[in-house]
Parts: sequence; C-alpha cells; structure tokens
Amino acid sequence: MALWLENQLKRYGVQTRAVPLGQQEVEGKILEYPPAILGRIGDDSKKKTILIYGHFDVQPAEKSDGWDTEPFELHVDRESGKMFGRGSTDDKGPVLGWLNVLEAHHALRIELPVNLRFCFEGLEEDGSQGLDDLIVTETSKGPQGWFHGVDCVCISDNYWLNTRTPCLTYGLRGIAYYQIIVSGPGSDLHSGMGGAVYEPMTTLISLMGKLVSVEGRILIPGVYDGISVADSSELQKYQDLDYSVADLEKVAGGPISLSDDKATVLMGRTREPSLSLHGIEGAYSGAGGKTVIPATVSGKFSLRLVPPQTPDDITKKVVSFIEDEFAKLKTKLKMKVEFVGGGKPWVADTNHWSYEAAKRATETVWGKTPNYTREGGSIPVTLTFADNLGVNVLLLPMGRADDGAHSTNEKLDISNFLNGTKLLGTYLYEVANINSDK
Amino acid sequence: MALWLENQLKRYGVQTRAVPLGQQEVEGKILEYPPAILGRIGDDSKKKTILIYGHFDVQPAEKSDGWDTEPFELHVDRESGKMFGRGSTDDKGPVLGWLNVLEAHHALRIELPVNLRFCFEGLEEDGSQGLDDLIVTETSKGPQGWFHGVDCVCISDNYWLNTRTPCLTYGLRGIAYYQIIVSGPGSDLHSGMGGAVYEPMTTLISLMGKLVSVEGRILIPGVYDGISVADSSELQKYQDLDYSVADLEKVAGGPISLSDDKATVLMGRTREPSLSLHGIEGAYSGAGGKTVIPATVSGKFSLRLVPPQTPDDITKKVVSFIEDEFAKLKTKLKMKVEFVGGGKPWVADTNHWSYEAAKRATETVWGKTPNYTREGGSIPVTLTFADNLGVNVLLLPMGRADDGAHSTNEKLDISNFLNGTKLLGTYLYEVANINSDK
Repeated sequence: MALWLENQLKRYGVQTRAVPLGQQEVEGKILEYPPAILGRIGDDSKKKTILIYGHFDVQPAEKSDGWDTEPFELHVDRESGKMFGRGSTDDKGPVLGWLNVLEAHHALRIELPVNLRFCFEGLEEDGSQGLDDLIVTETSKGPQGWFHGVDCVCISDNYWLNTRTPCLTYGLRGIAYYQIIVSGPGSDLHSGMGGAVYEPMTTLISLMGKLVSVEGRILIPGVYDGISVADSSELQKYQDLDYSVADLEKVAGGPISLSDDKATVLMGRTREPSLSLHGIEGAYSGAGGKTVIPATVSGKFSLRLVPPQTPDDITKKVVSFIEDEFAKLKTKLKMKVEFVGGGKPWVADTNHWSYEAAKRATETVWGKTPNYTREGGSIPVTLTFADNLGVNVLLLPMGRADDGAHSTNEKLDISNFLNGTKLLGTYLYEVANINSDK
Repeated sequence: MALWLENQLKRYGVQTRAVPLGQQEVEGKILEYPPAILGRIGDDSKKKTILIYGHFDVQPAEKSDGWDTEPFELHVDRESGKMFGRGSTDDKGPVLGWLNVLEAHHALRIELPVNLRFCFEGLEEDGSQGLDDLIVTETSKGPQGWFHGVDCVCISDNYWLNTRTPCLTYGLRGIAYYQIIVSGPGSDLHSGMGGAVYEPMTTLISLMGKLVSVEGRILIPGVYDGISVADSSELQKYQDLDYSVADLEKVAGGPISLSDDKATVLMGRTREPSLSLHGIEGAYSGAGGKTVIPATVSGKFSLRLVPPQTPDDITKKVVSFIEDEFAKLKTKLKMKVEFVGGGKPWVADTNHWSYEAAKRATETVWGKTPNYTREGGSIPVTLTFADNLGVNVLLLPMGRADDGAHSTNEKLDISNFLNGTKLLGTYLYEVANINSDK
C-alpha cells in the first residue's frame, strides 16, 4: 500500500519520501513497519501551504466475521448507492479523494491553487507507531524540515454526526486511563473464608462506586475546575446542529440517552469530561459461578478530558481523591492507583480562515451549512500536529455516522465519495481565495 | 479405585454393592461415572449402626503445577513426618484409616463393636453426581433400603482449625449464588460515547456497592432475621477453642483479619452469614487498558448462609432489595437479578451421644479435648444424609489446617494418619459403650 501510494503521488508530480519507522517482532520474525509516505508539491511563497494527513492501513477483517461480501474486494452496490469494503471510509476513501484532486489537476494541466504537503501513514490502527517522533524530528530541522512553512493542517479521517449533514470537526476529547489495585490475601481464597477477612473486591467496588454517578456526573473534587460554561451563543450552536437524540440512540443501539435535550447530550459527549468504568482484572469473569474471594483485583476506568484538563492535572486529583476515600474505609488491605496512559484534549479556533474556507466549500458542494462538531473520542496525531507545527488543524470528514468503521460491512456512500472529493478540491480553492494574515 | 476399594472391603468381610451413577460425555466419548461403593458389616440389633461416608476420587494434579514430588506417587518424608501425594488428606487417607480399622479386627478375629454401613463415592470433587438420588432412593425403600437402621453418620473429610488440636465439626454454612445483569446498549460502545448514555457498568458497580460494607456487614434488609445471638456460654466455647487470629492470617496469606478477637473472627466465618463479590462477566478483564463501555455486564456474588436462612428465603430478600435500589437509580437501563444456585446450612446437636463418643475417643487417643468447630464452606452430602436419614451427622477430621487439600504438595502428617486411624477405631468402641436412647 505504501509503495502504491508513493507511486500514485509521483505520477501526479508530487515529490515523495518514504520514511522508515522501525521494526516490530511478529510471531518470532522481525518485520519492518510500513514507512510513512511524505509528499510535497508546490513551493510558491505567494500561496498558502496546506498539510494533508491520512492513513493507508485498515482494521483487520475476515468474511467470517459477518461480512456480506469479501471485505478486501470493493463491492459497489449501485441500487443502495453504497461501496462496501474494509477501509472504504476509514481511511482509504478519503485518501483516494485527495489522489483524485491531484489527478484532475495533473490530467487537465491546471496548477494547484495552494502548495500541498502530505503525511500518510500505515500504522494509524496500531497506535501511529513512530509518527510523533517523525513530526517532532522534522519540526526540529527548522527551514529544512518537511513540514516547514505549513499554514494549516487538514485531516479527513472522521465522520458526520448523522447521515444527512456534512460537518467540520473542531474538537476532540483527551483521555486519562487509570487502574485501582487492591490486594491483601496471599492467594485467591475460598469464599468459605467470607466473614473473617477484608475482601479486596468489596473495597474496590466501593472505591469504583465513588467515582461517578449513574447519571454520568464525575464525583472527583476539582475535576470540573476551569471548564468554561457554554454561553447562550454556544448553546445555540448545539441547538442549531442537525442532530437528534434518536441519532444518538441509533448508534448506541438502545434508548439509553442521558437526556432528552440534544444540546445536553452532545455537550455531555464532546465538551464535558466523562468517566467510564471498563472492568476488573483478577476477579472472576467467566459464565456461571465461582465461589472465590479474589486476592488482587485491578479496577480499570478512564476519563475523557476537555480543555483546560490535562492528564497530569487530573491524575493528581484522581489519586488524591481515591487515596482519601481509601483511608476513610480503614481496611487492612493495600491499595494503589496507577496512571496507565493518556493524552490531552484538542479544540481548534473555528473562526480561523481554514474553517471559513471549509464552510464555504461545504455550502458550495453540498448546498448545506455544515454542522460544527466536537467528538468524544481522540485522534492523537491531531494534537501532535497542532502543538508541534503551531498551526490550525481542521477535521473535514468524508463519511457518515453509519459507515461502520472498524465494524463488519464497512461502507462509504457513492455520493459521499463523489461530493467528498469535490469538497476536498473546492476547499483548496476557498483556502487560496480567502483573506488571511498571509 | 472403586474396584480396589470394593475388593478391600470384601477381603475384610464387608458385603458390598457397586451402584452405577450414570454416564457423562468427555471430549465426545460416553464414559461411565465411577460407581458408588456401598458396604455393610454386622446386623446385630443390640448394637448401634454407624454409616461411614468417604470419597476415593481426588482433585487433578500435575508435577508441573509446582509439586516437589510426583503427585500420584506417595512420598513419605520421615524427617518432616509428612506423607505427600494427591489425595493423602482429601480423602484417601481417611478412607484408608477406616480400612485399617476393618483389617485390624479381621486379622485379630475381633468382632466389631457396632454394625457398620459404608457409602464411598468417586465423584465428590465433581459435585457428587448422582449421590443425592442414591440416598433418596435407598431411603424410600424403607426396611429394604441400604441405610435402614442407621443410628448416626460419621464423615472424615475435613480438617482441624489449626495444626495442633483435633476437632469435631458440627456445622457448615449454606450458600446462595446470584448474578445482577445490567444491559442497555446494543453492543459494546467506544468510551468516546461517555457522557451521552447511561453506562451499564456504572449502575452495576453502584448496585454491587450497596450489598455489603467493607467490614463484611451485609446491607440487605432482613438478611439477619432469626439468626440467634450467641449467648455467653456459646461465646465462651469460641474463646476456649485452640485458635488464634494468627492461625487465620496464616491461611489467608496476609494480616487482613476483620477483627483482633478470635471469637469474633471464628463466628464471622462460621456462625454468621457473609457476602462475597466474585467478579463481573462481560466487562474488560484483561491486563492494560481498553476504552470500552461494556454493553451487558453480569455481577456475581454469593452469600454463605447459617440457620435459619435458606436459599429460598434469602433470594426473596436479595431480589427485592436490588430491584428497589435499581428503581431508585432511575436509569434507562435494564436490570435483572438471577439466582444461580444454592444449598441450605447445616448444624448438628453436639449433645448427641455420637459427639460425646467422639470427644472421649479424641481425649483417649490425642490426650486433648477437641475443638468444637463450624466451617465456613459447604459439604452438601452432609445435609442430604441429615435430612433423609433423620439422624445425627458428625464430621470427624483426620488432617490439619495446613494439609493443602486441592493445592500443590498436598500432605498428611504421619502422626495424623496413625492417631487418626486409632481415633476412628476408638470412636466405634466409645459409640458402643455410650448410654443412648437405644
């Protein structure tokens, strides 16, 4: 895929570089990671320079997982207007969209309206191994760095909020993942011992129960510090979005929305922090019953973060709260809280010219004003670009909420592919024409 | 093992019957269950009739599990005075003890002082398949039944409370096992959805946290109804036991006793009910982290019961309490409580002549007054004998608390085997001599 992509770029006049990203061991064999494919075309100082990111790797898929067609053969269904196949929407469709834009200009011998830089990787689904280092390294080279002179970043690797309305995505939540480890017995005990000893599960469940209310309110003191309250104009933006609680419940697979107000639901999912309890390691997790008192249990939970929260700051509050609550329990057991990993939240300035250009392009191509959305999940490379290059990042999705990325029968609507490709091209012209500091 | 045992019994003049217990499928093959071996010797209406129970099956064992010697070759270590091997203490040692008593009388041509009935099974470690039915069937035959005329039951299949003092065990707790199932989402969700939907784990953890305090107090209303309070004479019995909190903490593998008072600890473990949280099915249970909102989670817990608690009565209280607490949470999720299985508690009358005989025999053989103990776990066949035959049951253990039944390097001390065998024989003579209604 990396080679094919590099050759495509070359064919359309793009200067490329394949950057090795290291090795991994798979079943005893040392394998090279797929290289990142960097590209550059245009060096006109009078034009803006846009960095495009995408990925050419996909999630695993087997027909036996429940696919109706072979996952690695594109199946175009003209009747429903959908193209089925692994990677159709995540993220080969959008990458092909960019190639189509290049091909059109190359075939028609039209000069591109902006300078373009590309950063395509083949490890997005495997944690973007090596990519952060690559971006940091290139940035540290100053004027010789591949990304030098980039004015903004455009990423097409997410989805509309629904199946009807295009969107511009300007925020992602961060994450901070923890485990609470409670221990005491030397080994798992028979529950015939119950009533004589402190049991780690009882203490762990008690601590996990103090973290969040069933309505999703985080109960750790100070966690909400500094988070802005949405003013009436921001609230209005959420109300104006083409979205409904029914859209949410369709994705969730049940009538389990925390609120009947769409703004409250959307804000809860994207502009407020959340805390989810994921499970317990070391306890009985099988079917049926086992009369065990588990000796050491580790409760897993994570917070999704929004500005100004950071994993460092939240970790202090989480650890301090749990240690205080544990002390109040006065058990003879041992407890520790561990930070497993995390990443900061990201929010972009939607008044930036790149967003304005994307809005105009969306109105031109789709005939609709886009939804302005934040997402509840994380795309870590977004923040790496924003922090290292110090420029605005725009998420400009091609696919819909029901595309089934990572799932069986992943699809991209033909209309989304065609209009999405036009959108990416039109965006470049709007960027070129728009008034900016440069 | 069944055939060998039957032949041994026959050699010593015991009339036997091998009772088929049905079949099982193992890896596609139909295998006969090992038969129960019944035995009878003596039919003198002037003598008491004692039913002996034991089992000739053992837990699985492999040297690679961590044994120092081959688990299925008896290793006699004269220096430490211990005999290592699977089944040494659970329960082949005690069964051999009974055979030795028979052999001695047979070899010396001494008439046994009582009539004996035997019930040996080879499925104790597999849930005593078929044995309850056998006992019920034999009982229903009236005077023709194998167990007709039995005056009391003696079982040697448990352990001392410590490593120093013989004991008579007169009580076992019952059990009632439950799962709380909470559902709502159509499938596992990405935790980027957190803050928008009710999460089953949050509700489950909240419910599990309401069941029991970290000090082991069960919080379900009515659970303690009818349980007698120990009077001063019963409290004194617990204080008089040769036992310490250090004995408990040695077995638990850590300093995690709920109390520093040995009577409180022993009563908590044996004469009070307890509630243990075992784990959660359907949540993340691996190492590291996974950002999942599990769709359907099932929390497992069980209560150990004491008289007058029964699984039926406790189930009503458990279900009603959890349903009330769930209703208070006012979530949009679904919840149900399921009773997985259970069994009633058992307590015997220690003033019965069988206990008095066992006490005298213990004092004669060991030179010590025995500990009178109840156990925290369950041996279901005990209650089946007590209920169906309507007679007193005595648990008269041979081994010590540190024997490691079910574990690696299972052992029986030579002194426990020799004195234990003498104890079983002496018990029969004390039973014969003791004043009783008969």
